[in-house]
Order: sequence, then C-alpha cells, then structure tokens
Amino acid sequence: MSVKRNSRHELREICRVAARVFYEKGYDRASMQDIARAVGLTKAGLYHHVGSKDRLLFEIMNYGMDILDEVVLARVRKIPDPSERLRATIVGHIDLVVRARDLEITVILNENRSLRGTLRRKINLRKSAYIHYLEDLIAEVQAGASHPPLVPPTLAAFALLGMINWLYQWYRPQGPVKQAELAEIYADFFFRGLLGK
Amino acid sequence: MSVKRNSRHELREICRVAARVFYEKGYDRASMQDIARAVGLTKAGLYHHVGSKDRLLFEIMNYGMDILDEVVLARVRKIPDPSERLRATIVGHIDLVVRARDLEITVILNENRSLRGTLRRKINLRKSAYIHYLEDLIAEVQAGASHPPLVPPTLAAFALLGMINWLYQWYRPQGPVKQAELAEIYADFFFRGLLGK
Repeated sequence: MSVKRNSRHELREICRVAARVFYEKGYDRASMQDIARAVGLTKAGLYHHVGSKDRLLFEIMNYGMDILDEVVLARVRKIPDPSERLRATIVGHIDLVVRARDLEITVILNENRSLRGTLRRKINLRKSAYIHYLEDLIAEVQAGASHPPLVPPTLAAFALLGMINWLYQWYRPQGPVKQAELAEIYADFFFRGLLGK
Repeated sequence: MSVKRNSRHELREICRVAARVFYEKGYDRASMQDIARAVGLTKAGLYHHVGSKDRLLFEIMNYGMDILDEVVLARVRKIPDPSERLRATIVGHIDLVVRARDLEITVILNENRSLRGTLRRKINLRKSAYIHYLEDLIAEVQAGASHPPLVPPTLAAFALLGMINWLYQWYRPQGPVKQAELAEIYADFFFRGLLGK
C-alpha cells in the first residue's frame, strides 16, 4: 500500500515537471529525452514509468482532473445548500486555475488537441462528468428560485466554465485584483446572470 | 490599387488554408511544404508571399483581428445607444467565433503561444485594443444605470470574453441550441450579471 502511494506520488511529480517542459517547448517539440533530463531520470527510466509520450500527456491531463476532484469537489460535496455548494465550487475552481503551481497543467487541459483516440475520449469523459455535475447543481439552484429558469443549465454551465477557464489567459495573482476579490466578484456576477438578482 | 486589393485577397486565402493545416497538424509539425501544397503554390512561391513560417502565423492572427474589426466593430460603431451597441457587439462576436468557416483562425487566435517577440507583441496590442473597447463600452452602460457599478469593467470584459471565446470548445451550430438563441441567452445573461436585472 505504501509502495502504491509512493509510485503515485512519483508519477505526479513526473507529470508536474513534464507539464512544464511541454508548456515551454510545445508538445511536438519536446522530446522524451528533454523530459527525462528535467525529471532527473534516464530515458529508459522515464519510459518505464509512463509507457509513451502520448501516455504521459494523458497522465498529465488525468492528474489535472484528479486535482479538480480532490481540491474542489471533495471539499464542497457535503455542503447541504445548493447555492452555497455552487458558490464554493466556483471559488474552488477559480483557485485551481489561477494558482501558479498548476498553471502548465491548466493550459494543457484547456488546449487538449494533441491527445487522440481512446486516451482523448477518457479525458473528455472526465470533463463531461464535471460539466454534468455543474448542470445538475445549477438546475437545483434554479429550482429553489421564485421564478422559472432564465437560462438553460447547460448554457449557464458553459458560460461559467468559459469565465473561469479563460482566467489563465489574462489573470495575474500579482496584479491589482486579489484572488479572493476576483472569486467573490465572479461568483456574484454568475449568480446575477443565473437568477437575475 | 486593384493590384493591392488582389494581393491582400491572395494573402487572406493563404491564411485561411494555412490555418486549416496548422489546426490539423499542429504548428510545429506542419511544414511550409505542407502549406504550399495545400495552397497550390511552390514552396518558393509561398515564401515569396509570406516571408517565413512565423510571419505566416502572424498574418493568420492579424487576419483574425481584421475580421473582428470588419465584421463586428465596423457594423456596430454607429449604434448610438451604448447598451444596444454592447448587445450588438456580443451578438457579432459570437457569430464570428461559432461560424465554421473561421474555426481554425479562432483556435489559433486563442492558443497563441507559438508566436514570439515583436510579432506576438503586435497581436497582443490589437487584442488589448479590443479589450479596452469593451471596457469603455461596459463602463458607459454602467454609467447609464440607476445604481453604482456592481463589477469593475475590466473583470466584466474578461468574463464576457471567456464566455464567448470558450464557445469554440463546446458549441456546435448543428446541435440543439441555434446560434440566434445562444446569442440572445448569452447577451441577456451578461446584462443581468452586469446590471443585476
């Protein structure tokens, strides 16, 4: 059991370093030798851990989705009120996207055209599951309002994902708007758009 | 003058075809030979038109910003009411992002890390000009409301850009939500978020 945990820890460390190399050089241009060097492994050692370059890219994205589950969803799941749960999800997801530590993983998750076939489908399934979670939660919030829904939950969920996922393109935590302020303003903005108040 | 117009027309045709090749193969993997073949030029002919591969990528992005100016901004500039001008901008920008004809250009504009140095700065300047246009227009709309601004114009502008630019990741015009409906729902959603009504 501790062996298993260690090897997962090791895989995650490889993912973080490899994400940085892919981000800097581009997926096509980065070689497995570049990544092995950055991780401090031999090329054979790296292949032993990850199988192939495609598989490594998949593992990075999968790790990104794991973080979303662990850091955001696991923490909000027990909040009984749907509106509060949605607000906590928004704040948690923004936190994930803007923290510098995982910037490269965010970019790779957002720009995922390099992955193909089964591996791509697996990642897209995990992304779909998150979108469904948002749609259901949004519908629950709408059901608690005093008026009929103003916007279909699917369109609202993607509007929210657009607002949040786009942050990596422009938001800098060192800038004038602090993260807590950003999260509050965006959550308020989304709730007004959703409920009209 | 007609020569100039023809050569611009030719450059735009090259940009459209090259955008498709970059989109399919990835910028790094696509060779100038691939692009020359797709355009129906010799490699020397292509270099004559565009100078270099970096320059070609720049021309594609520049063309994308031209379309934004010509198709969206030129058409809304004369609308006197700020709220109507903002709504028309939203509808026009959504139209640009979702029409299949320019899908590849949208993707390349959104994922612009392959461009470096001066060329990258030039494109970023054009993007900034559009963001400033949105910020100013949003501030004007807020100034006409009966209450103080609920959200800083910059954050509202980027929320809007996120909602719209993210569409290329998920929206399919052949799907259940027609484009006109999408544009109306998103414009309404944004105005509620902005003004709270």
